[in-house]
Amino acid sequence: MGRWEPDARGRLAKAAMELYAEQGFEQTTVAEIAARAGLTERTFFRHFADKREVLFYGMERLRDLLTRAVAGAPAAATAMDAASAAFQAAGAMLQENPERVRLRDAIVSANAELQERELIKLAALAAAVAGALRDRGIPEPGASLAAETGVAVFKVAFARWVSDPGQRDLPGVFRESMAELRGVVGGPVG
Amino acid sequence: MGRWEPDARGRLAKAAMELYAEQGFEQTTVAEIAARAGLTERTFFRHFADKREVLFYGMERLRDLLTRAVAGAPAAATAMDAASAAFQAAGAMLQENPERVRLRDAIVSANAELQERELIKLAALAAAVAGALRDRGIPEPGASLAAETGVAVFKVAFARWVSDPGQRDLPGVFRESMAELRGVVGGPVG
Repeated sequence: MGRWEPDARGRLAKAAMELYAEQGFEQTTVAEIAARAGLTERTFFRHFADKREVLFYGMERLRDLLTRAVAGAPAAATAMDAASAAFQAAGAMLQENPERVRLRDAIVSANAELQERELIKLAALAAAVAGALRDRGIPEPGASLAAETGVAVFKVAFARWVSDPGQRDLPGVFRESMAELRGVVGGPVG
Repeated sequence: MGRWEPDARGRLAKAAMELYAEQGFEQTTVAEIAARAGLTERTFFRHFADKREVLFYGMERLRDLLTRAVAGAPAAATAMDAASAAFQAAGAMLQENPERVRLRDAIVSANAELQERELIKLAALAAAVAGALRDRGIPEPGASLAAETGVAVFKVAFARWVSDPGQRDLPGVFRESMAELRGVVGGPVG
């Protein structure tokens, strides 16, 4: 390891996001990111496997948050209660830094390869939530249904939230969307 | 165009699936697929953009089927009724050739790149269903909620069906899963 760089990871992430927004993800090199952050390429690769990872390393924290929230839901919570609490906690985390999240979303949405990676990470989040629900004793297919439905509702809620900079309350939009889902699936389904 | 080859597309698809199953997707070349089918590489590329497309060209038919089924649902159908009818129609199409669908699933599941493509195609199907629901006058976010939820339930139903070769009735498994979803989301959601 080289000498310690104060908040190298944060500086690299900030520089990368700026460059992706200014000139596009594909056009940006790791050398440019390191230069903008006043660091070396070697330091970049100590913190991120590649330039895509700058946009996705937060997903691991999100996964841990989701599985902990499922595990920590009250004993009486249903599968959907527990999943819903988890996605509200995820929403609360994301809205801590709405400008960064909206900028990141614009970068990912503009690039097919990044959108693919986003879908894979979302599928992994659904699998992690389903696993945490099974750990609570929820049998299949209930665990997967609650987890996949939670992700589906979260995607819709996130899309509403991210497209409206006046909207601050992502957990609230999620709760509204869950209520609408209950209306949508409540009727007879042929 | 070269001379007409009777069912060249079907022969190429069959040869490709056999080779992917026997020796793995990555290890298989277009030259081998063409040779097994008794055709030329040039003929292969008249029918498929690349060797991945052999596994995904059915998705377009599936998308057309889904959007037509949504459009053709009775006027009184709710958003979820219409989406549900569409995914049952998709299930009926898939179970016409269960061995092929199960073999394809095993090939896709064994390869990260193919799984990515599968997720992208599923996201495109959800978007197409949401669009067809909006065309019926269903406003957002109801259209996206019904479409994303339909895909979420279909994923769970498909996973149950594909892992049980004794199970024939995919539309039936979808209906059961929808009923379980109503149970899952029916309770209070915090």
